[in-house]
Amino acid sequence: MEGKAKTGISPTRVEDFPQWFQTVVRDAEVAELDHVRGAMVIRPWGYGIWELMQDALDDGIKETGAVNAYFPLFIPLSYFEEEAKHVEGFAMEMAVVTHHRLEQGSDGKLHPAAELPEPLIVRPTSETIIGRSFAKWINSYRDLPLMINQWCNIVRWELRPRVLLRTTEFLWQEGHTAHATDEEALEETRRMLGVYREFVESQLAIPVIAGEKPEYERFPGAEITLSIEAMMQDGKALQCGTSHYLGQNFARAMDMEFTDEDGERKLCHTTSWGMTTRMIGAVVMSHGDDNGLRVPPRIAPRQAWIVPITRDDPTAVLQAADELRDEIAGQSWDGKPVRVQVDTRERKPADKRWEWIRKGVPVVIELGERDLEGGVVTMTRRDDPGLSRDAIPREGAGEAVVGVLGDIQMGYYQEASERLRDRTRDDITTLEEFREFFAREETDSGGFVRAPWSEEPGTIETMGELGVSVRVIPFDEQLPADARCVITGGPARVMATFAKAY
Amino acid sequence: MEGKAKTGISPTRVEDFPQWFQTVVRDAEVAELDHVRGAMVIRPWGYGIWELMQDALDDGIKETGAVNAYFPLFIPLSYFEEEAKHVEGFAMEMAVVTHHRLEQGSDGKLHPAAELPEPLIVRPTSETIIGRSFAKWINSYRDLPLMINQWCNIVRWELRPRVLLRTTEFLWQEGHTAHATDEEALEETRRMLGVYREFVESQLAIPVIAGEKPEYERFPGAEITLSIEAMMQDGKALQCGTSHYLGQNFARAMDMEFTDEDGERKLCHTTSWGMTTRMIGAVVMSHGDDNGLRVPPRIAPRQAWIVPITRDDPTAVLQAADELRDEIAGQSWDGKPVRVQVDTRERKPADKRWEWIRKGVPVVIELGERDLEGGVVTMTRRDDPGLSRDAIPREGAGEAVVGVLGDIQMGYYQEASERLRDRTRDDITTLEEFREFFAREETDSGGFVRAPWSEEPGTIETMGELGVSVRVIPFDEQLPADARCVITGGPARVMATFAKAY
Repeated sequence: MEGKAKTGISPTRVEDFPQWFQTVVRDAEVAELDHVRGAMVIRPWGYGIWELMQDALDDGIKETGAVNAYFPLFIPLSYFEEEAKHVEGFAMEMAVVTHHRLEQGSDGKLHPAAELPEPLIVRPTSETIIGRSFAKWINSYRDLPLMINQWCNIVRWELRPRVLLRTTEFLWQEGHTAHATDEEALEETRRMLGVYREFVESQLAIPVIAGEKPEYERFPGAEITLSIEAMMQDGKALQCGTSHYLGQNFARAMDMEFTDEDGERKLCHTTSWGMTTRMIGAVVMSHGDDNGLRVPPRIAPRQAWIVPITRDDPTAVLQAADELRDEIAGQSWDGKPVRVQVDTRERKPADKRWEWIRKGVPVVIELGERDLEGGVVTMTRRDDPGLSRDAIPREGAGEAVVGVLGDIQMGYYQEASERLRDRTRDDITTLEEFREFFAREETDSGGFVRAPWSEEPGTIETMGELGVSVRVIPFDEQLPADARCVITGGPARVMATFAKAY
Repeated sequence: MEGKAKTGISPTRVEDFPQWFQTVVRDAEVAELDHVRGAMVIRPWGYGIWELMQDALDDGIKETGAVNAYFPLFIPLSYFEEEAKHVEGFAMEMAVVTHHRLEQGSDGKLHPAAELPEPLIVRPTSETIIGRSFAKWINSYRDLPLMINQWCNIVRWELRPRVLLRTTEFLWQEGHTAHATDEEALEETRRMLGVYREFVESQLAIPVIAGEKPEYERFPGAEITLSIEAMMQDGKALQCGTSHYLGQNFARAMDMEFTDEDGERKLCHTTSWGMTTRMIGAVVMSHGDDNGLRVPPRIAPRQAWIVPITRDDPTAVLQAADELRDEIAGQSWDGKPVRVQVDTRERKPADKRWEWIRKGVPVVIELGERDLEGGVVTMTRRDDPGLSRDAIPREGAGEAVVGVLGDIQMGYYQEASERLRDRTRDDITTLEEFREFFAREETDSGGFVRAPWSEEPGTIETMGELGVSVRVIPFDEQLPADARCVITGGPARVMATFAKAY
């Protein structure tokens, strides 16, 4: 118990959720802001989670027929000038390369030299550059659909940086596709939202609301933006992936034409869609508790961690630990060998135990001489709020671990689903109730409100004052015939999900 | 035969090797220079090769105990000022970010606005930034060794860009490790060269010479640079991976200290090592022929390609093609399912056949009605210079493909090994012979010369005039007692491998 008090996260979630988040991210060695304002180092534990996320999502993307490629980091400034809304949306946060050499000045210091003929933008998104390649590659309807995905880094200058959530540089994948018809492009837009939904729910154990963004929250240059939104433990929404139907806006700006079966030259219809390292933050805020991170087993770089507790002669215990590791690694879960490691570092066993609890390893197994004698091992499940040490028979411990992994993956999803259900209000009908619901402390932002909305521009201002936005117009949502807008009280046009958001 | 003449690469390798290289890279849709001077688009076929290279090398890196992480793209200019040789080596090719916003000027155009307080360098390599993180993370000998790898993009401004070989932006992995002693750091430096050697030889089927770089070719800031060098088909050398022992140079510049077991504060010893997308170019120049690219099966995104040849009623042929695909995909080669695809695109079968020959797919299988009737399929092996169409029994075709993949992987390696052996001269003893050997046309650069070298600075100039350099001082090379330098005729100090290089 002493250990627990010592190693829990301070402040707790209830005390100060934003500070709790930052502390977990730091203490679990997930990531840190460092070196350059707003820039982030993703540490091995956080990057290991990202690698597993990439593997799973990459499979999902490739199953749709898209292939990976790589396009330049630097985009000529002139490329942005042809899609007015697009550049308007990104101009405020573009990092600009102006020189390509350093030279020693008369002060003995290095200074930028060799100015570029045209400034280069460090990509904030790649529609303008990938679209120009597409325009060259596409000649006929036989070249369509063209479906390409890129894993890369992105730079958007952030004035108020926040680790994992809002950083000047982040990693993502961006898919870009071109189609012969609007129907096909719309189908692709929806298909990819489905891929994201499946990925976030099944891998990250985070349930989401899927729908369309209102016009004022669309991607700059898009005709339609679809999004999946998750609820964090403080009731705020976090956008977990977006898929955009770009119509012919970008195709027109870039002359992305093809000769159709009827011999006519036509403009393509395009889409783009992306998911970022922000999702590591979503995992922390969805599943973390007051002892640290809790990683869903499917994306845990280590699913089981063995801590040998050795005294005078460590030989027998270390050998037993290796045997247990081999047995667990020989088990298959979710179609892959279980990821397990023995921690032989020169550190106190209690420190090791707490390190792996803080990092959110699903199962921690301690193994000492007394366990050996008793024919047991001591297991701690990360999903047990009391983190109790349970002696389980050594015989069959491998199968036991596999069973626990499945339980934990499902349990995290269920917990998050209950939160989403319990904290989504659909009984708020007036602006007064709406105001009251969202007028909360920073540490608890209420939750989601599902209510009829008029889509009137004036409502955006009212929401803005409360720090609230329409997250999505959820799919398959019926609007009652005489529905009244929760904000204006006038006629409503759609059902909307309102929330404060990251 | 008509098809062959039509689709071969022009110019051929003998006619103009550099132009042949560019044509293959373009026509096989591997990569292209585009958008920004010196910037490269890696197209899906080239990127697919890179993904398989990454998978294999990443496994090799992780087996050594290193883990992946991610560090910022932008490095403060001040970080470079503390390691003088390092900054000297990179200052001429650094891209500099000076602004973080665009604003519309009075001319209606967008201009860089919001100047940064300190210019940021787009990473040309990450020793200076990763080292500073290491300095924070390392406290005690218990934190060592610290072994971290990063897959990322790198920018070095190129005045004479060349696709895949010399581009302003490229992709790579860079490993960075810190150790308690010089012995351990040196061992790591050698271990990683071994990982590269194993990777290049077994995956890319390219034999290499391993050794140490002469001082004048060292990485800026390194004490020792180890390298593996391969011979391209024009006899030139291409550096395939380097591993640097950095001594305490970077540790000193960054205060990377630890408390040792004896309680003393000591400086770490560090290493770094890298391999880049240039290796895709090495594959092209090592294995390509006058029909295009030839990809070693281990890194071929598709190892077998099925072209159905359909006439009036395609049903039976397409069904047979799918069955064949399933059978081949059910085979395991090199521990993985065979990567195979049926090409159902609306194109002429001859065009499809030649597309996949040009792209270097190891095995192309054509399947038409006549084949079905005869109980055969028509196989073309990419390693057959005549590209003959061989009828093989349909029964057992899956196993046949697997056997061919192994043959081709080994055959490419053997061909390249013979070239390396046949074109490495160890009988050149005078400067006259040396000059004569290297005074060749651009399209055939002779090969390698293995000869005693005095290491005298004056020899570097002589070599420079010929466009030649010492590629490595090969490991385990005995210098005869009375050896004379091939350039000065005076006493030699080492055996060296000389060559023109990319």
